[in-house]
Amino acid sequence: MPQRRATIERLAAFSDGVFAVIITIMVLDLRPPEHPTFAALLPLWPTALSYVVSYTFVAIVWLNHHHLLRFTEYPTPRLIWINFAHLFAVSLVPFTTAWVADTRLAAVPVFAYAAVFVFVELAYLQFEHHALAQAEAQEIPHRARKLAKQRSFLAFGLFVTAMLVSLWFPWCAFGLVCCAVLLYLQPELPGTGGLA
Amino acid sequence: MPQRRATIERLAAFSDGVFAVIITIMVLDLRPPEHPTFAALLPLWPTALSYVVSYTFVAIVWLNHHHLLRFTEYPTPRLIWINFAHLFAVSLVPFTTAWVADTRLAAVPVFAYAAVFVFVELAYLQFEHHALAQAEAQEIPHRARKLAKQRSFLAFGLFVTAMLVSLWFPWCAFGLVCCAVLLYLQPELPGTGGLA
Amino acid sequence: MPQRRATIERLAAFSDGVFAVIITIMVLDLRPPEHPTFAALLPLWPTALSYVVSYTFVAIVWLNHHHLLRFTEYPTPRLIWINFAHLFAVSLVPFTTAWVADTRLAAVPVFAYAAVFVFVELAYLQFEHHALAQAEAQEIPHRARKLAKQRSFLAFGLFVTAMLVSLWFPWCAFGLVCCAVLLYLQPELPGTGGLA
Amino acid sequence: MPQRRATIERLAAFSDGVFAVIITIMVLDLRPPEHPTFAALLPLWPTALSYVVSYTFVAIVWLNHHHLLRFTEYPTPRLIWINFAHLFAVSLVPFTTAWVADTRLAAVPVFAYAAVFVFVELAYLQFEHHALAQAEAQEIPHRARKLAKQRSFLAFGLFVTAMLVSLWFPWCAFGLVCCAVLLYLQPELPGTGGLA
Repeated sequence: MPQRRATIERLAAFSDGVFAVIITIMVLDLRPPEHPTFAALLPLWPTALSYVVSYTFVAIVWLNHHHLLRFTEYPTPRLIWINFAHLFAVSLVPFTTAWVADTRLAAVPVFAYAAVFVFVELAYLQFEHHALAQAEAQEIPHRARKLAKQRSFLAFGLFVTAMLVSLWFPWCAFGLVCCAVLLYLQPELPGTGGLA
Repeated sequence: MPQRRATIERLAAFSDGVFAVIITIMVLDLRPPEHPTFAALLPLWPTALSYVVSYTFVAIVWLNHHHLLRFTEYPTPRLIWINFAHLFAVSLVPFTTAWVADTRLAAVPVFAYAAVFVFVELAYLQFEHHALAQAEAQEIPHRARKLAKQRSFLAFGLFVTAMLVSLWFPWCAFGLVCCAVLLYLQPELPGTGGLA
Repeated sequence: MPQRRATIERLAAFSDGVFAVIITIMVLDLRPPEHPTFAALLPLWPTALSYVVSYTFVAIVWLNHHHLLRFTEYPTPRLIWINFAHLFAVSLVPFTTAWVADTRLAAVPVFAYAAVFVFVELAYLQFEHHALAQAEAQEIPHRARKLAKQRSFLAFGLFVTAMLVSLWFPWCAFGLVCCAVLLYLQPELPGTGGLA
Repeated sequence: MPQRRATIERLAAFSDGVFAVIITIMVLDLRPPEHPTFAALLPLWPTALSYVVSYTFVAIVWLNHHHLLRFTEYPTPRLIWINFAHLFAVSLVPFTTAWVADTRLAAVPVFAYAAVFVFVELAYLQFEHHALAQAEAQEIPHRARKLAKQRSFLAFGLFVTAMLVSLWFPWCAFGLVCCAVLLYLQPELPGTGGLA
């Protein structure tokens, strides 16, 4: 029994470490401009924009991850591997964020950006499925569970649409990604820690 | 109840991870000089100076963060998001620190440096407001609470003044930032863990 | 007694931090391509391939590490130092991963890649030996213990073979490394947290 | 009371995070050589050597840090600040390590390398003094305490000597640093977790 606790605690601690490093190494791409003028800051806007969106996305992912792990008592080997796949998907975010910023929201990089978000959502949906299977029905109200699921699928749909749209209208696709991220920022809805 | 504990513990663990990465990636900007002489170390002084100030600032922010979190029993979704905003502001410190160092304390970079500190303070004041709202009145003596607030506002005023002054007298502005940081180093005052 | 707990907990926390940083700094080598085209992504395949293999390997190492630490009640100084040697070996993975990727699986880099995996396995076998010496016999079923040991030796053999083969057939050697990694991915076998 | 626990736990968690990042970002300086040959690995020996010594040094510092923190029940503001000074000193290790490696153990870089070790030891001796002041006399046997102190002073003396010698005989100074590090590797002596 204490050994099971150890597993879930170390899984959380390790995941927290990975999230913390991912969310902060993105800032390493915010290289200071060469000239000490306000004008020199202007060309940094694509970097700044994609950094803000990616930071918010990783924050949401962490929130949902921590939320789900609270219902997990016995991490099965399968759940641990889904968690690694999930963290792997998240670890690609700094790469696509830098590409989007470097190319100033060009078509293919935005496609890759949205594709990584789709990958993260896919791994997350698997993670949710396995984590909640353990939670007893009464622990999470039926309505909260349904709302959380609806939101997950809506966000997933928005990311897929963004991916498809990106090759013709990269800006529009980036806007869709932002919408999906904003969707999660409503604190009154469950799934953003609203059950905490 | 154990689930609520999980939330506050993981919030602390994740924040600690972010603080730890931020405070140490700044050292990556301390690139070794090309020549193996004492003279080669000299041009590094702006980097060293800004590194010391930023390190101390992040240390203070961590101290206050940990201090406030001790009074938080039930992290609301709002508090979690204020915490993310707070960490986001702190994650900009390495960027402005590098800019100040690269340009040897030029006007606009010092402005940006002070602006990030103002942003951190704003997020911190929000964080303080929400975290202490939960703490029962008797937990923190009235005088300690008042002193902590006075100091927060004084530091905030110094950072804003530094921001305004920086465009004309960057060195003077940097000095004001140092004063605000030194203000927090008095251990006899509460707020620096003095209540620990 | 509470002091002993502190030791094992901090050893786990520190190791988790190191694993988290190692597994995520490899992503820093995934530099975005210059051109915003799908074709520009193609030359990244050696980087992507070696990143996936190394990520999976570190994930397995973490799993086994966490698994063993659950049986450790009293970390002796010797065990702590074996743990540091183990972490040191793992910390070389990003270096050889980058070399393999940069040279597109050339002979010597693949040799170094396999050699680091052999080094990690050697340190792990030592770690396993010392950690399990403390666990009482009934805690781990005899069969599970035997299967875990057989697998460790099989993986070790594959890594050594990969090392020898690499100088003539680097691709074949890389395939052997992949086989050894896949060997650990069977969740029904003990040793991948299957006892959790 | 639970609030005091929170302080010491978060201090340990934050310090662990900083140690974990410092010990692993040094590996970022192990850049893969351009050519895929064994000969290309040879010029990396100063980097490899200084990496091994610095890794071992940080491992020892972590061991002593964790050892002392076990005797600390009530971290005073002063102790927290000494801890920050200690971590600051350790955070300079990757910088001097890279300089020593880049210049292949030139005189001034080895001087700076030894100077940072002296700085770490000074902060550690302060940390030890304040942490042990809280521990009751019977908790640590008199002999263990005395041996630990003797070793600290011997190591400190070796680091200072290395600093002085380095400007004329950098190799000799580097050897002295290695001796001081090896001094801590004897597990039968207390101070390396021997009391665990």
